[in-house]
Amino acid sequence: MTVPIVRTIADLRSAVRAWRAAGESVSVVPTMGALHEGHLSLVRAAKEQSDRVIVTLFVNPKQFNDAGDLSDYPRTEADDAAKLAVLGVDLLYAPATSEIYPSGFTTNVSVSGVSEGLCGAARAGHFDGVATVVAKLFIQTEADLAFFGEKDFQQLQVVKRMARDLDIPIEIVACPTVRQPDGLALSSRNVQLSKAERALAPVLAQTLFAAAGRIEAGNEVATVLRDAIVALEDAGFDKVDYLELRAENGLRVLDSLIEPARLLAAAHLGETRLIDNIAVRPG
Amino acid sequence: MTVPIVRTIADLRSAVRAWRAAGESVSVVPTMGALHEGHLSLVRAAKEQSDRVIVTLFVNPKQFNDAGDLSDYPRTEADDAAKLAVLGVDLLYAPATSEIYPSGFTTNVSVSGVSEGLCGAARAGHFDGVATVVAKLFIQTEADLAFFGEKDFQQLQVVKRMARDLDIPIEIVACPTVRQPDGLALSSRNVQLSKAERALAPVLAQTLFAAAGRIEAGNEVATVLRDAIVALEDAGFDKVDYLELRAENGLRVLDSLIEPARLLAAAHLGETRLIDNIAVRPG
Repeated sequence: MTVPIVRTIADLRSAVRAWRAAGESVSVVPTMGALHEGHLSLVRAAKEQSDRVIVTLFVNPKQFNDAGDLSDYPRTEADDAAKLAVLGVDLLYAPATSEIYPSGFTTNVSVSGVSEGLCGAARAGHFDGVATVVAKLFIQTEADLAFFGEKDFQQLQVVKRMARDLDIPIEIVACPTVRQPDGLALSSRNVQLSKAERALAPVLAQTLFAAAGRIEAGNEVATVLRDAIVALEDAGFDKVDYLELRAENGLRVLDSLIEPARLLAAAHLGETRLIDNIAVRPG
Repeated sequence: MTVPIVRTIADLRSAVRAWRAAGESVSVVPTMGALHEGHLSLVRAAKEQSDRVIVTLFVNPKQFNDAGDLSDYPRTEADDAAKLAVLGVDLLYAPATSEIYPSGFTTNVSVSGVSEGLCGAARAGHFDGVATVVAKLFIQTEADLAFFGEKDFQQLQVVKRMARDLDIPIEIVACPTVRQPDGLALSSRNVQLSKAERALAPVLAQTLFAAAGRIEAGNEVATVLRDAIVALEDAGFDKVDYLELRAENGLRVLDSLIEPARLLAAAHLGETRLIDNIAVRPG
């Protein structure tokens, strides 16, 4: 069992247009590879909701603000292809960087508002890189549906806003974060953790769940957030980039739980930056 | 004879998809209305090269850097529709501002390189506004071909670059500038000229043609450009924003005629800013 791999826009479009001509619906699951169960859950959801599923694999240089982070990012295409073959994916689109950003490329897609603060503050240019490449992948694949994980919650909001604002006729489907039994959100970056760091990593999720519970129970938001940051630092995280309560719709900063919200955090363990987020619901 | 008018993306898409289902090709001619013979020449070219022609009419606030200029821009939809009906245009798409930029809109498409200098220097944000709205119109109309005039030569390069960089499957067709017998390039802004200004306006084109001839004859570019600016000022233009020789491909500034080039200028006559450009060819 193998998955067909295409590397050019022309080959991609030719496959998609044949499906369309046959009246089939098409989903896309954009990834940077190093596929884990989180990605595979997106692929399974896509398989259930459409006739054809494309997985894209492109480690997008424009969304890395650190050259070391880009070069260290895990690249495991053969393993990824094997996992996708088992799931019956119809096409793996794995273009070279020169296919996505050919010589002379100078266009940037930028989303203000939801991209500000959180990971947008810590990673300059990151969400421009995301919005630009995802706009291109949507237009290249001409898919009906696109699947993204809630793990990258701010990214999900940026992608939704971009697709709506540019009128791209695609529906964005959000899928829940997949976690290890100890609570750690699956991430391609988890393989970079040392054994000691891996043991500590689930404290991030555990701290968020505890803080969400306290907020839902009516405790003052500012106090809960401050306590949670201290808890992460005391547990051994090297730096907490942010730990904030935001409105689920539009990501406004909330200082009280007046609407459906999200508790989001980013924290460093050695060389690795982990992010996570969970829902917080008014009673 | 009338032209059907639609005002929503949904109605537009429904018309286009019916044509597509019948195997018909579709062209779009994006305009801000106040149609003159320049626009109509684009429409005729579109009619010749495709089965269906959509004209869009949208005075795009994002590409105006001056509120007065936006409010003064001529709006003549009924006249425009009558002219398009005569030419057998299939659809006039004339959306409200709220259809193009609904509440919450926060996405910007930006093209660096070709958008820099020339009108990009004098009109902050102008080409971002152009790139953003044209990307939206291309995605909304799903047209095969789009027609633009060479009159707005830098805009044409921005649009080409944007469409290529975002992989929008549309071909950009450039059409020559239409001129009055005295050389004045047709422009919706010409109606704003007083009688005295109108008498003076053709000096812009005449100066460009003369300068191009001198450059093609081997005269030093810097000298010719300096002389031409002085000639415009002496003739009575209030301010010359720029008068430059640029490479036709990529718009690099040229100080000698080593490749196909374009001589471009913008100059003010009273309240009106006129632009024009012509080809300059190495011998």
